[in-house]
Amino acid sequence: MLIVMEHNASAEQVRRVQETIETMGLQAAPIPGSERTAIGVLGNQGYVDDTAIRNLPGVRECIHVSKPYKLVSRDFHPGATIVEIGDVRIGDGMAPVVIAGPCSIESVDQMMAAARMAKKAGASMLRGGAFKPRTGPHSFQGLGEKGLKMLRQAGDQVGLPVITEVMRIEQLDAVCQYADVLQIGARNMQNFDLLKEVGRLDRPVLLKRGMSATVEEFLAAAEYIVAEGNERVVLCERGIRTFERATRNTLDLSVVPLIREMSHLPIIVDPSHATGLRSLVPVMSKAALVAGAHGVMVEVHPDPARALCDGAQSLDGPAFESLMSELRGLAAYLGHDL
Amino acid sequence: MLIVMEHNASAEQVRRVQETIETMGLQAAPIPGSERTAIGVLGNQGYVDDTAIRNLPGVRECIHVSKPYKLVSRDFHPGATIVEIGDVRIGDGMAPVVIAGPCSIESVDQMMAAARMAKKAGASMLRGGAFKPRTGPHSFQGLGEKGLKMLRQAGDQVGLPVITEVMRIEQLDAVCQYADVLQIGARNMQNFDLLKEVGRLDRPVLLKRGMSATVEEFLAAAEYIVAEGNERVVLCERGIRTFERATRNTLDLSVVPLIREMSHLPIIVDPSHATGLRSLVPVMSKAALVAGAHGVMVEVHPDPARALCDGAQSLDGPAFESLMSELRGLAAYLGHDL
Amino acid sequence: MLIVMEHNASAEQVRRVQETIETMGLQAAPIPGSERTAIGVLGNQGYVDDTAIRNLPGVRECIHVSKPYKLVSRDFHPGATIVEIGDVRIGDGMAPVVIAGPCSIESVDQMMAAARMAKKAGASMLRGGAFKPRTGPHSFQGLGEKGLKMLRQAGDQVGLPVITEVMRIEQLDAVCQYADVLQIGARNMQNFDLLKEVGRLDRPVLLKRGMSATVEEFLAAAEYIVAEGNERVVLCERGIRTFERATRNTLDLSVVPLIREMSHLPIIVDPSHATGLRSLVPVMSKAALVAGAHGVMVEVHPDPARALCDGAQSLDGPAFESLMSELRGLAAYLGHDL
Amino acid sequence: MLIVMEHNASAEQVRRVQETIETMGLQAAPIPGSERTAIGVLGNQGYVDDTAIRNLPGVRECIHVSKPYKLVSRDFHPGATIVEIGDVRIGDGMAPVVIAGPCSIESVDQMMAAARMAKKAGASMLRGGAFKPRTGPHSFQGLGEKGLKMLRQAGDQVGLPVITEVMRIEQLDAVCQYADVLQIGARNMQNFDLLKEVGRLDRPVLLKRGMSATVEEFLAAAEYIVAEGNERVVLCERGIRTFERATRNTLDLSVVPLIREMSHLPIIVDPSHATGLRSLVPVMSKAALVAGAHGVMVEVHPDPARALCDGAQSLDGPAFESLMSELRGLAAYLGHDL
Repeated sequence: MLIVMEHNASAEQVRRVQETIETMGLQAAPIPGSERTAIGVLGNQGYVDDTAIRNLPGVRECIHVSKPYKLVSRDFHPGATIVEIGDVRIGDGMAPVVIAGPCSIESVDQMMAAARMAKKAGASMLRGGAFKPRTGPHSFQGLGEKGLKMLRQAGDQVGLPVITEVMRIEQLDAVCQYADVLQIGARNMQNFDLLKEVGRLDRPVLLKRGMSATVEEFLAAAEYIVAEGNERVVLCERGIRTFERATRNTLDLSVVPLIREMSHLPIIVDPSHATGLRSLVPVMSKAALVAGAHGVMVEVHPDPARALCDGAQSLDGPAFESLMSELRGLAAYLGHDL
Repeated sequence: MLIVMEHNASAEQVRRVQETIETMGLQAAPIPGSERTAIGVLGNQGYVDDTAIRNLPGVRECIHVSKPYKLVSRDFHPGATIVEIGDVRIGDGMAPVVIAGPCSIESVDQMMAAARMAKKAGASMLRGGAFKPRTGPHSFQGLGEKGLKMLRQAGDQVGLPVITEVMRIEQLDAVCQYADVLQIGARNMQNFDLLKEVGRLDRPVLLKRGMSATVEEFLAAAEYIVAEGNERVVLCERGIRTFERATRNTLDLSVVPLIREMSHLPIIVDPSHATGLRSLVPVMSKAALVAGAHGVMVEVHPDPARALCDGAQSLDGPAFESLMSELRGLAAYLGHDL
Repeated sequence: MLIVMEHNASAEQVRRVQETIETMGLQAAPIPGSERTAIGVLGNQGYVDDTAIRNLPGVRECIHVSKPYKLVSRDFHPGATIVEIGDVRIGDGMAPVVIAGPCSIESVDQMMAAARMAKKAGASMLRGGAFKPRTGPHSFQGLGEKGLKMLRQAGDQVGLPVITEVMRIEQLDAVCQYADVLQIGARNMQNFDLLKEVGRLDRPVLLKRGMSATVEEFLAAAEYIVAEGNERVVLCERGIRTFERATRNTLDLSVVPLIREMSHLPIIVDPSHATGLRSLVPVMSKAALVAGAHGVMVEVHPDPARALCDGAQSLDGPAFESLMSELRGLAAYLGHDL
Repeated sequence: MLIVMEHNASAEQVRRVQETIETMGLQAAPIPGSERTAIGVLGNQGYVDDTAIRNLPGVRECIHVSKPYKLVSRDFHPGATIVEIGDVRIGDGMAPVVIAGPCSIESVDQMMAAARMAKKAGASMLRGGAFKPRTGPHSFQGLGEKGLKMLRQAGDQVGLPVITEVMRIEQLDAVCQYADVLQIGARNMQNFDLLKEVGRLDRPVLLKRGMSATVEEFLAAAEYIVAEGNERVVLCERGIRTFERATRNTLDLSVVPLIREMSHLPIIVDPSHATGLRSLVPVMSKAALVAGAHGVMVEVHPDPARALCDGAQSLDGPAFESLMSELRGLAAYLGHDL
């Protein structure tokens, strides 16, 4: 850590900062400058909590050189994490995974049709939402546990592992009964209680980036889960909120290679939520793979025009088959067997 | 609602949209244009769910004229809502309220000292956090129920109602036992389950705007609470996330008068979280009142340099007294008795 | 256009809006709703200037169905524009173009070395900046016309067309003397005088998206150029400013397929400025091609560690050769001959 | 400056950085850490150009402790700058200035009527645009030099100094002939050639913040002007672009007190462009004064409903008189004589 003092900080204020650093069992290395003094902090193992220093008089800024995540950092774990879900393996060197399914589970028939579509086209995992966070109170809110059963049943029938979002700690028991992977949605990326709770479970977690979360906050959120003992975390970029509203969100695809440098965790992309536009989903799925994503999560629906949720971004059967065929070609080109 | 068709939409596609509208019990009014056809929807009472239409072939866009909130809208409830908490009244025509207290409850002594500071200077409500959402897993996470008791005790001792954040539904019982007002934090603004739950309680709610929530989403979140029957909702602007990082967030003060036009609910401002800089808190508190805020929520701490959380934005006793004295003068100028 | 009236707009106010529309030679189609009246405008050819209506009493909002660009819109020109620069052709169906060169022209030797690097690896155009917009006044500001000569010379020597940024109208004569393509930088995307001026020239233009420009504003800026008669416009996505600062800008790659739907103009991507990180440039170049970009513009430098500008995002010779070899493979996979 | 090395940087790489620093005539102070090495740079006077270092192998990040502006910084010039324009004085301790006038100059009659409105209500300066940057090519583009004459004439007639925007260097001669203050618009905040040019003139400059400019970039732009010798610079906050579109821009009012801490230059606020909504202009003008702004710039128009530009945010005569009367009261409360 580097502590930058105010231009007009007194010698006494500098001394107090130095003493406080030493009280913390660390060493202080003052760097006098022509404009202001800076004080280097030495001897720390990992991130230093700056609470005791930041508020001292004369301190202008604390600049952290260590980051608020260590367990998920590639610096200390150069080897990649491969997350296994049944036969599916996600991570460096593995074939990219394709997770497909409807935004929300609507009925046994819809879920079964979607599962057959997904399986037939070659997806490796089935998704479906039972608890839906909706912006307004009068929209369809999901089928709850009834929906979970339909999802499980559909997955079993076609032979695909299933993933679904858990929004509250109290839903964990029910969701764990039915789902192979727990999804933490963008709105819950900083629901730290929930993160800790899933960190104590023996179940893979798909963690979506928050709508306005920086890469650093995203990795710090993953650190919460891993710190509790659950290392099977898959990250998911799903678009961030910016001034541009021509797409639903702004897909921040550059963070895929960046996060692969920074962390050993696998990362996938959700082009459906990121763009919100059906016609962009296939092309951005391919771009995601080329950018180094370990997979994509795509919304499909047997009848998008009648979907109760997010139909405008869902692919129908033929469109999804065509996408899968393109992805297979691309994966082969990239050296994988999809 | 207005449905805009693609430039090259066929007559058949236009017809299908019209039929779908009529199936919904509404009327369709086609507006042929030189570039494309638009279709007006008539006869609806309030917001129309566009799911069935948005996904039809040939549809380019659905433009909503009605908004996804009605209960909280000033259009239909021109009279202002005044929220009462003990002797405190928040809303149009009332003296601005000042809520003060530490970011987090640390000990009986700290809480009592803060309560005395708040009371002595003239605050009308006491705040303190017992459950703390922290970005990284290794920071101080709050005292939990033990902290709630300290808050209640401190409030009772000095004679101030107390407010604290509730982060999970399971905390509601405990929090309701101790707190006069329930705070929903920015990270939970779209935790719809929690919103619905507090909507069923007979307890005032302070709803903070999410870090990347639009005004429309903010009001739609309040609608969730009111729709369940709880009309005692106070909104709170606390800064949004933008590209500018010189301040912790960007205080969006213009939404105060805007929301006062759009909604009948009271709105206050939290300059401490918005700016993150102690030196800006007093001046932005005053600006908030002049902008029409029904109050401010300010972080104070008996010893900010030793605060376990957010000390850099906390005022100490003398600074808070001086702020209160300025606010009193300003309130008197604005015609209120603070 | 659709005009939305206030909830409490009077019949008189509605009538005044109708009359104003008719004065403009258009037809008004009122759509009374349960909450408010909307008024459709019919009979217009293209975008309607709403100045006369927007300010009338009782008007809440004017919603445009036609867009503020028509000449660059795919709706009215379904065929793609192919921009030819010497032997290079940019646009639908053409092999992706690779433009390479240093951020700024520093010397004859540097420019020649860069040109040889670019040519040897297989780039199809040479870039280099002679006039540099720099954030602070004390950084290197470019060599001006001396630099332009070096660029031209280097391009001629290796047989590559050259592109350089023009920042002011007065530079146009000099730049046109040396450059095959005129680049309009992000900071000048809304320098409308400059746009109009280059619109009157017979020289291809590369128009970069402004740092905070929406897709709609981007296309409207291109419309300025085309409206003056110059149809040889190539768009360039180079990242937008968002809250995320881990990359220099946020590369908004989804706009590539979106703009290809909306406009007939070619669009390329600049991953160097977008990410600001050398290690991300190759992977995002490939992702750009897969997303449908008609080319990429990449910063290369014979000795990035000694570059006077943006070295951190520049590739050296071996890195650029390796990128070109990857792009060739990818282009072949996509059906092109790079 | 602090240089942060990569976790796995070699001793050789650290050594090369040290040597480079010493070549620059500065001292290097390595700070070895448990995770990575950092290197402090000592002995610099002001901002260090990091070009030569940033690109060296093994360097992760260069953190600047000095800022890219010094002349405009309060650190080195604690006394405030007071800008004088005729009898008007802008800056610390002066009565807040009110600049009023139409967005664009439309005719002699309109300009004269606006000038009389401004004068009668008590404004201290007159504004009006002769060259208008408009998003689309077919909107009204301003009257040019003819407009400048009308502005000058109107100002002379009522006895108010006049301010107008200059968009290009070639317009400088004409504008200087007619205007007392040169306005640099938001789109030109980083038009560095223009900044340098006005920096060489003996004429006060009003510099508007760019739509996506950070505070640091804003001050660095002012530094360009001051570095050329012109110290009469007034800053103007006019809203930034964020995800929120309920207002035209997001007025970032907190930067007013922040900039007053950081710089000795005066700063005013433009609530008309910031909010884009007439009904918010008065209340945000008052909030601006309380936040410490040295003045406000407000759009007024004799007949907003017929304005050729930005009528929706313009005040008419009675509204402006009422605002001025409120501002007078507020200024008196704040201890000034408006």
